[in-house]
Amino acid sequence: MPNPTAAILVIGDEILSGRTREGNAHYLAGELSRIGIDLREVRIVPDDHDGIVAAVRALSDRVDHVFTSGGIGPTHDDITADAVGAAFGATVDVREDARALLAAHYAARGVELNEARLRMARIPEGATLIDNPVSVAPGFTIGNVNVMAGVPSVFQAMVASVLPLMTGGRPLLSQTLRVMRPEGEVAGVLGALAAAHPGVTMGSYPFQSNGAFGTNLVVRGPEAAEVDAAMTALAGAFPETAA
Amino acid sequence: MPNPTAAILVIGDEILSGRTREGNAHYLAGELSRIGIDLREVRIVPDDHDGIVAAVRALSDRVDHVFTSGGIGPTHDDITADAVGAAFGATVDVREDARALLAAHYAARGVELNEARLRMARIPEGATLIDNPVSVAPGFTIGNVNVMAGVPSVFQAMVASVLPLMTGGRPLLSQTLRVMRPEGEVAGVLGALAAAHPGVTMGSYPFQSNGAFGTNLVVRGPEAAEVDAAMTALAGAFPETAA
Repeated sequence: MPNPTAAILVIGDEILSGRTREGNAHYLAGELSRIGIDLREVRIVPDDHDGIVAAVRALSDRVDHVFTSGGIGPTHDDITADAVGAAFGATVDVREDARALLAAHYAARGVELNEARLRMARIPEGATLIDNPVSVAPGFTIGNVNVMAGVPSVFQAMVASVLPLMTGGRPLLSQTLRVMRPEGEVAGVLGALAAAHPGVTMGSYPFQSNGAFGTNLVVRGPEAAEVDAAMTALAGAFPETAA
Repeated sequence: MPNPTAAILVIGDEILSGRTREGNAHYLAGELSRIGIDLREVRIVPDDHDGIVAAVRALSDRVDHVFTSGGIGPTHDDITADAVGAAFGATVDVREDARALLAAHYAARGVELNEARLRMARIPEGATLIDNPVSVAPGFTIGNVNVMAGVPSVFQAMVASVLPLMTGGRPLLSQTLRVMRPEGEVAGVLGALAAAHPGVTMGSYPFQSNGAFGTNLVVRGPEAAEVDAAMTALAGAFPETAA
């Protein structure tokens, strides 16, 4: 059975302007590999209602699980909940279960649950809340879309809340062989070995180290025996890599 | 006149597997902001022919300039040139101008221009070469799509080759006010000021510092006077930020 598939949708002008370097997609990519969910696409879009609606619909149709990052805070530019609700034709309003979570949290700290903070209780009807052990304001899951905060510590906590609910597949195993030869010199052998080992994929990633050209050869696949066999063949083709 | 628009398409299984953290999109995002080209989307897709073709077509239709990163090296998994050619219905083969560049480069170093390296001279008909002062193998521009290498030093050199050929717009100016209050406390004032200053956008980015909650308020816009006015109003609303 093929692995389940996923896409990540990152929402935020601050990424597209170059101000902030995105890190949540990279983090989640690693977590998904580990549990055998195949990440098929990452998309970064602006804080724009129609653009978010269109991206949610396109990705949600194409993969098993969509994860969004960003745009669910208390400010006027946090429009993700409304856009995701619109993508599913769901009405979005302050929901009692989310309001109660926020009310208890702020009351315990003597902080006012003002109108802005109450925006974080706006959840589409029919959605399930995603637990936020860091700062309480919940994410939510509607259909196959998991809506999470952009602040990295909160994003990671929400990932830890939702991933255990998903059925994974076979984790993607990978092994790397570092060869101190330029990519153009290893390419022929690599292509031949890739053709001879159809159960794995082989990638090559050139680098420079102290002015010398080298290549990392990466074998990936779900079957440990096939990854091992391919890596043994690769190491045999580049005997200088023997320990 | 509105600014020209752009999209970035990153190609590579190694990003989607979580092995490699993408950095080229972040770099180019900053360069585009600087010259007034509005980045509308970043998309990361696997090393898959049909997926690349579909993404190139979708993005190329929607924005003025598309930039791709990755998949133009000498190995069997470098399929970007063929996919971009297919997206434009252009035949792709070893082209004499590109072959001559590679031949001169490798001859001068006593290195064989083997079959694998010759793959880097596969350029769609009708494309213009993009200069690569780092490692010679060229990128190319076809239609509104600029195809560049994924190795960061080469990517950046190719960006430096193509951006001066493009007409920019008004650079996006931005100023940041750091407020040591949680986002839920600044949101109301921020929303009111954003409504009062329609010529700029105001974003808020929460952070934690030594256990305390703070928010970076960012004003962005093309007009210096409007950005200044909005920032003055913001600073007035949070008097504790005065120097």
